[in-house]
Amino acid sequence: MREHTVASFDEDLEHIDQLMRDMGDLAGAMLQSATKSLLSSDNPLAQRVISDDAIMDAKQRELDDRAITLIAKRQPMAQDLRAVVGAIRMASDLERIGDLAKNIAKRVGAVGQSTTPRNLSHSIETMAALVLKQVQGVIDKYVARDAEGLKPLRADDEKIDIQYTAVFRELLTYMMEDPRNITACTHLLFCAKNLERIGDHVTNIAENAYYVMTGTQLPPHRPKLDETSLTVLAE
Amino acid sequence: MREHTVASFDEDLEHIDQLMRDMGDLAGAMLQSATKSLLSSDNPLAQRVISDDAIMDAKQRELDDRAITLIAKRQPMAQDLRAVVGAIRMASDLERIGDLAKNIAKRVGAVGQSTTPRNLSHSIETMAALVLKQVQGVIDKYVARDAEGLKPLRADDEKIDIQYTAVFRELLTYMMEDPRNITACTHLLFCAKNLERIGDHVTNIAENAYYVMTGTQLPPHRPKLDETSLTVLAE
Repeated sequence: MREHTVASFDEDLEHIDQLMRDMGDLAGAMLQSATKSLLSSDNPLAQRVISDDAIMDAKQRELDDRAITLIAKRQPMAQDLRAVVGAIRMASDLERIGDLAKNIAKRVGAVGQSTTPRNLSHSIETMAALVLKQVQGVIDKYVARDAEGLKPLRADDEKIDIQYTAVFRELLTYMMEDPRNITACTHLLFCAKNLERIGDHVTNIAENAYYVMTGTQLPPHRPKLDETSLTVLAE
Repeated sequence: MREHTVASFDEDLEHIDQLMRDMGDLAGAMLQSATKSLLSSDNPLAQRVISDDAIMDAKQRELDDRAITLIAKRQPMAQDLRAVVGAIRMASDLERIGDLAKNIAKRVGAVGQSTTPRNLSHSIETMAALVLKQVQGVIDKYVARDAEGLKPLRADDEKIDIQYTAVFRELLTYMMEDPRNITACTHLLFCAKNLERIGDHVTNIAENAYYVMTGTQLPPHRPKLDETSLTVLAE
């Protein structure tokens, strides 16, 4: 027997969408604050990012619960099921973005206390700005149900990978020039890697969003341009 | 109208369980091969790990599809729903473990071509062995529905974090001693970080497995002993 329900499927889904928008906004804000705290050695701001991560986790849990309940209650088919499952997957990527922003924030103390080559700030800032634009863009396109608008996001992820490779090389060079740079550069290396991984999660979200909207896949493989795992600098 | 179904809920769930065991076995094998290829500069073995990741992704997709179909078809309640949702979450962590093993394998070329301080091998090997034991242990305990057996896994994750901190410091020291070590050590740093992150995913799996079995949470926070993000070595 079906229990009588007041809300329609669309209303339930709208609620899930709203949670995803909240998570997207929070992810963008955490990323922005994490970068700012890193580049300005702002420890209180970094602490806020770290505590925001608990809010992100709670929102994901709420979205998951609602989505599972919705599937069990309404047994949605085809497009509707795709939307609900897509929301679960996209929320998981947003939660990971929050985690990565938190990981950057956790390194602020260690970087700030060391001799940081300040010239690096600009390269990292450029990379972070690209990543932030991606995070905000993917949620905007999803909310607007703009499938075409998702396509350029992929190409932009390649720009992030190129910038990451540049930052990686720059950091290695600084370390080789002066051992006193090594500690700070090591932490910055992880921060840059985290930014690059956020870009990958945006690509995942774009793929899921596109599938939810169209029922078809974005072409499955993009050329992967993070080649730092192959980088061997002249020594 | 309900469609007539031959298989029981338990049979459907058993199939999902089997997929999770397969994913667990594959995760363990990938991790073992990734570590071996890293420590012995075995590029063909590393390539196999990289290609195994596609198998892992396919298995996760299959598990997800079956789980979602099961929820929609059977509308399971309480413990049954918990088991299905738990399987989705655990599979996602196993897939991430495969990804991290692949990321280690992708660095084998870069590390092998450089001057690697071979003394480091032992520390990394120790860490990898701890992590592998965790991956294998958590799946064994889940398959055996041994809730109590999951508890020590958490404490063991702390050993991984301690070992990671040791490896991290060792790598920084090597880099400071001789700039020629920097490139290889940087890649090894990411490998060690990936091992530490695999440990975190095992902890997630243990938490989900415990919840599936008991309906209660393992105490929510363990002391997090990866303190490398706070590490500032004397320079």
